[in-house]
Amino acid sequence: MNWHDIFATRMSRMKASEIRELLKLLDQPDIISFAGGIPDPALFPVKAFQAALADALSPVNSSSALQYSVSEGYGPLRDWIVGQMATLGVPCSRDNVLITSGSQQALDYLGKLMLSPGDTALVNWPTYMGALGAFNAYEPNYDRLSPGGNRSAEDYAQTAAEHGGRVKFAYASVDFANPTGETLDLRQRENILDLADEMDIAVIEDSAYQSLRYDGEPIPPMLALEIARKGSIEECRTLYCGSFSKTLAPGLRVGWVCGAASVISQLVLMKQAADLHSSTINQMAINTVARALFEDHTAKLRQTYASRRDAMLAALQEHMPEGVNWTRPEGGMFIWVTLPKHMDGGALLRSSLETQRVAFVPGQAFFADRSGANTLRLSFSLADDAKIAEGMKRLGQAIRAAG
Amino acid sequence: MNWHDIFATRMSRMKASEIRELLKLLDQPDIISFAGGIPDPALFPVKAFQAALADALSPVNSSSALQYSVSEGYGPLRDWIVGQMATLGVPCSRDNVLITSGSQQALDYLGKLMLSPGDTALVNWPTYMGALGAFNAYEPNYDRLSPGGNRSAEDYAQTAAEHGGRVKFAYASVDFANPTGETLDLRQRENILDLADEMDIAVIEDSAYQSLRYDGEPIPPMLALEIARKGSIEECRTLYCGSFSKTLAPGLRVGWVCGAASVISQLVLMKQAADLHSSTINQMAINTVARALFEDHTAKLRQTYASRRDAMLAALQEHMPEGVNWTRPEGGMFIWVTLPKHMDGGALLRSSLETQRVAFVPGQAFFADRSGANTLRLSFSLADDAKIAEGMKRLGQAIRAAG
Repeated sequence: MNWHDIFATRMSRMKASEIRELLKLLDQPDIISFAGGIPDPALFPVKAFQAALADALSPVNSSSALQYSVSEGYGPLRDWIVGQMATLGVPCSRDNVLITSGSQQALDYLGKLMLSPGDTALVNWPTYMGALGAFNAYEPNYDRLSPGGNRSAEDYAQTAAEHGGRVKFAYASVDFANPTGETLDLRQRENILDLADEMDIAVIEDSAYQSLRYDGEPIPPMLALEIARKGSIEECRTLYCGSFSKTLAPGLRVGWVCGAASVISQLVLMKQAADLHSSTINQMAINTVARALFEDHTAKLRQTYASRRDAMLAALQEHMPEGVNWTRPEGGMFIWVTLPKHMDGGALLRSSLETQRVAFVPGQAFFADRSGANTLRLSFSLADDAKIAEGMKRLGQAIRAAG
Repeated sequence: MNWHDIFATRMSRMKASEIRELLKLLDQPDIISFAGGIPDPALFPVKAFQAALADALSPVNSSSALQYSVSEGYGPLRDWIVGQMATLGVPCSRDNVLITSGSQQALDYLGKLMLSPGDTALVNWPTYMGALGAFNAYEPNYDRLSPGGNRSAEDYAQTAAEHGGRVKFAYASVDFANPTGETLDLRQRENILDLADEMDIAVIEDSAYQSLRYDGEPIPPMLALEIARKGSIEECRTLYCGSFSKTLAPGLRVGWVCGAASVISQLVLMKQAADLHSSTINQMAINTVARALFEDHTAKLRQTYASRRDAMLAALQEHMPEGVNWTRPEGGMFIWVTLPKHMDGGALLRSSLETQRVAFVPGQAFFADRSGANTLRLSFSLADDAKIAEGMKRLGQAIRAAG
């Protein structure tokens, strides 16, 4: 059977990532890895989840917890999120919140909502690889969301028309972004909103790391800035994606989208058709745990991860050779390293795995145009100070040997 | 903001179902409802889930249970499914199984895998409404999978070409289908495989109710019949969709697709891009519960639901007026009622809610061409014998009043 005649055209955009294949080999215990951007499981609030799941399966709750439920999501959890959004400057109601299976699913649904083949999505160079993966299924063209704001709306519109569609949205990870660790400042956020207003396009605000700020002043989400401009979330073009994966636990797959009710209602129809609803029992458990300890728990996470970030910044300072630069994130899990122009992150990964047994993610896969060969992403979320010091020493040696 | 200029063309296919809106009003306690096709929560194996989740959060397991995991699904659960598929005549290995968030997600992914806009999907008239909902996102045309086998491959191909695409797959719910309760016999299954071989298209076999057979001889899945023809699952065009929603619990959202490894690997890439993976802890819990009691528990379900089916068949016999016909399912949750030609199921629902306080699902929404106005679906899974007797009496009165 010739499956390639049967597959939809979109499947040509879905390819196994070489890097992911390489990273699968990282299970060997002698490798020090800064590759995975995942939370430290030692910090999971296990006791709270034990209590929450036991409560969900108590006689009064078990019939609901194990049963089908509504596509919109579990009401009390949507209410808790409404309260959380209010603290971020986003007054809204339950109808403005859809529960998704992680914020990855929110990105998939938002691509599905807006992108017809040939439409254009504006993204940063580099951007979250998983956003490109989700959007690719809907066969868009990508254009570069200019950080300096030096591209005009006409210019974007014309480029999009040349690719057979129109610009549908700008996507941006706003706080301590994966992969760069960088945060959009207030002016950059306002610039994106200006551009979106001028072009009449949507804005997807990826806020997966929002609760993990270690220093510096919090900056209002673009959705809050837009509500301040327009008076109500119902008038806003920004769709905010949040997640419990980095704060409570990723294994339950619970995230959310917050935006105008007219858009959320379309996403509810989409979710009903795509997977009916996110796990009922998991939404109940996340609701219980969030209400019990969200603030205290994220404070503890911030303390631990901040110290790891500091350790990695100090170790980079000590061990990186001349010509290597890196970001200094105010939160999140990632530091972004730029090597001298002639170097290649993929080649460096191969050589450093072989000679130094240290791993990271080469940066190229985060660029929609496959540029950025001389970049790499380091995650500090999983390693202790000793591993960070030893790992950066080895990485410095690998870079010197390759340079 | 004009969202309708931003939405993708596919969104014109996603509409709120009138029926679903109507059924939302069914919470009033005096209504007897046979509308929802959901398992009886009184039969959920709550104790087993309590033990399984406690085990998943034990010190040795909690770090994995709450963490990110692989897109393919939890290995031990895939292995259990391999064993289950073997009992159905489908020898396969772990690489032939992808875990999905319910079999609804499997249908969404298979539509996404194969359908480009204008392609054709062959479905029964009527068919599972949720399959039409999932496929609609990929903008197909539908053609009628002929039960009598009296349409030629050329005829299907020509009709598909007239709609601007080609036939990609035939979709069929094989055992005690939602909505009709009917089962494809051996010859019908072989006919579909013959047609698929002749047309070189895929077959989606929806087997959500497979374990709920109350009498009659089990019929091998089309995937088993095709393996018997071709020698190996790797040569097969049938993609089998299974679910734990009707056997263990729907609230955890765990189902699977089983098929050729070359197709499963494409679906793994799709899942990675769409939601990373299904809930880790839920997959672990389903694995534990399935291994502990799947056979005993489904035996208990069969006993209870069979008796409800019998009660409903007897009550229909007693209370339906002349000219009303219904199916006699060998399993599942549904009986399909055909009213005299001039009657309308939607109108009957409105009048019977008003005068008799009894609910069901009008059949029209299950037809891709919106025919079948004189049909309705009854579910017997949630009601006890007294409610069934009283409900059928009221339904008979409503039909007489409307007829």
